[in-house]
Amino acid sequence: MTRCRFCGGSPAYVIEHAGMSLCKDCFIKYYEKKVYKTILKHGMLKDADKVAVAVSGGKDSVALLKVLHRMASERFPSISLIAVHINLGIPGYSDRCQAVVEDVCRSLGVNYLIYDLGREEGYTIPDLRSTALGRRICGACGTVKRYLMNKLAYEIEADRLATGHNLDDTVELLLEFYLRGSVEEIVRVKPVAWSNHPKLVTKIKPLIELTERENLYYVMAQGLPILETECPLAKGSRMLRRKKLIDMIEREIPGFKHTFYKSHLKRLLPKLEQAVEEPELAECQLCGMPALSKTCSYCKLITKLKAKTSSQPQATQKQIRR
Amino acid sequence: MTRCRFCGGSPAYVIEHAGMSLCKDCFIKYYEKKVYKTILKHGMLKDADKVAVAVSGGKDSVALLKVLHRMASERFPSISLIAVHINLGIPGYSDRCQAVVEDVCRSLGVNYLIYDLGREEGYTIPDLRSTALGRRICGACGTVKRYLMNKLAYEIEADRLATGHNLDDTVELLLEFYLRGSVEEIVRVKPVAWSNHPKLVTKIKPLIELTERENLYYVMAQGLPILETECPLAKGSRMLRRKKLIDMIEREIPGFKHTFYKSHLKRLLPKLEQAVEEPELAECQLCGMPALSKTCSYCKLITKLKAKTSSQPQATQKQIRR
Repeated sequence: MTRCRFCGGSPAYVIEHAGMSLCKDCFIKYYEKKVYKTILKHGMLKDADKVAVAVSGGKDSVALLKVLHRMASERFPSISLIAVHINLGIPGYSDRCQAVVEDVCRSLGVNYLIYDLGREEGYTIPDLRSTALGRRICGACGTVKRYLMNKLAYEIEADRLATGHNLDDTVELLLEFYLRGSVEEIVRVKPVAWSNHPKLVTKIKPLIELTERENLYYVMAQGLPILETECPLAKGSRMLRRKKLIDMIEREIPGFKHTFYKSHLKRLLPKLEQAVEEPELAECQLCGMPALSKTCSYCKLITKLKAKTSSQPQATQKQIRR
Repeated sequence: MTRCRFCGGSPAYVIEHAGMSLCKDCFIKYYEKKVYKTILKHGMLKDADKVAVAVSGGKDSVALLKVLHRMASERFPSISLIAVHINLGIPGYSDRCQAVVEDVCRSLGVNYLIYDLGREEGYTIPDLRSTALGRRICGACGTVKRYLMNKLAYEIEADRLATGHNLDDTVELLLEFYLRGSVEEIVRVKPVAWSNHPKLVTKIKPLIELTERENLYYVMAQGLPILETECPLAKGSRMLRRKKLIDMIEREIPGFKHTFYKSHLKRLLPKLEQAVEEPELAECQLCGMPALSKTCSYCKLITKLKAKTSSQPQATQKQIRR
């Protein structure tokens, strides 16, 4: 009979890529040790004071908040955490996400900031469907979240922005970027994106070496609430199809995800970084936040959305605040 | 009803990645034009006089010999071709391969050279199974063929060595090397490997943009003999499993093979070449042929084989000629 690899007790979770079963307590220790080692290895919390944690309410970000809360209390006592949640205004989904975030933050005693996209910016993610980007709504939503999360973290003077990106997310990105040969994007896939602009907060990904499955197990093991619904807009998205493909490759090449990530980080990235110039950041002419060209990606998106809505009858218009 | 994309005639072959059907004659034109463009684009035959063509007897190399024979007669009249075949001594397989090669060369009127591994070198590929490399026999066989093909091409004073590597072979290599992050090997995957040593013949891969399937169609369309057997030693090999995986990815991401190859060639390779130093070639202390270390890979393999056979009873020993 299979027993817990560490204590010989009754196993609760199977870590397939490592070929081991662990009981609940040993799994929690294994998970937290892995996150701690990732944080130390990349100096993620070195000289950090205030860490903004992007929390969507999904399993990855809930696991992130919980594990960082443990780290902060036990190993980094000088660090203060603040959870940041954006309510994206997706009917039947976003309010549930917000409820999970509030629930988890209250139970952990972590301060949190809720940013309501509809109320603050005058539009919601479903509104983006009307733009040219509507067909790739997950990409547009990513642009919104990346921009606003950085802005909010900057405004509350956080010196780190932690996100719940896991190994599966990372490998999905890597597969896409290597397939397209997007070298400028490949060199940005790493555990820490150090700030190179006063208005850009350093981004850290403490869960980058953990799989989606391991994050789910951690949330379950800690008895934290799990969101039962998936985002209705992501259904059938390329991102989800690619994750299925990656799981299929993992079955054919056991260890594929870990191997590809490590090969990227240790062997390919250092060589590509030598050859790819870091782009210079300017400030967006519309919002003043960091931008790679005259206008930042977020303002470009919002401009498209405005153009679309202003061509619609008055009655259906919302006022986009910018 | 589907018709030939070019002439509207009755379709014979479906080119899936291009979403088109072609009749036999139009397919031959399409195929030959693609090979011609590949040759021109990379200057494969620029200033070449004598081209050695590595012909195993499989569909790719038979297609290669046929198409190069057409090119030489119609477009590069100053070039002479010579087919080079190595009989690997695999029972029930190698003699059939040789028969196909002799048949095709005679029907095209191309000079050929048959090199019998057992007679000339004193061992056959099945003998390699006894070495530590036996479990990865396809890799060991590749080392033998690469070494001997270059040596034979050098000895007959060819200034090019053409091989039948197709798009599937190339993508299989790329997937493996990118997954492992083997940057030194990644930068060697290209359509032409220009000679950087007097004893190294420039290698060209005129079929690198054509799929296995397209090569099979060309052999069929030209009414050339097709080997009915697959190599019995390759059954269940990692190489074959990887090719199945690549076909599976292609079904999920249509155009995967072409996209990945082009991204590698145009975007990743130029950046990696900037960062990876070209290794210096020395001469092997045992055979005098080009080597990356003191002893070339071929002599290392043969040394292992000798050590193994000399530890066996006299009666089973063959004399390995080196």
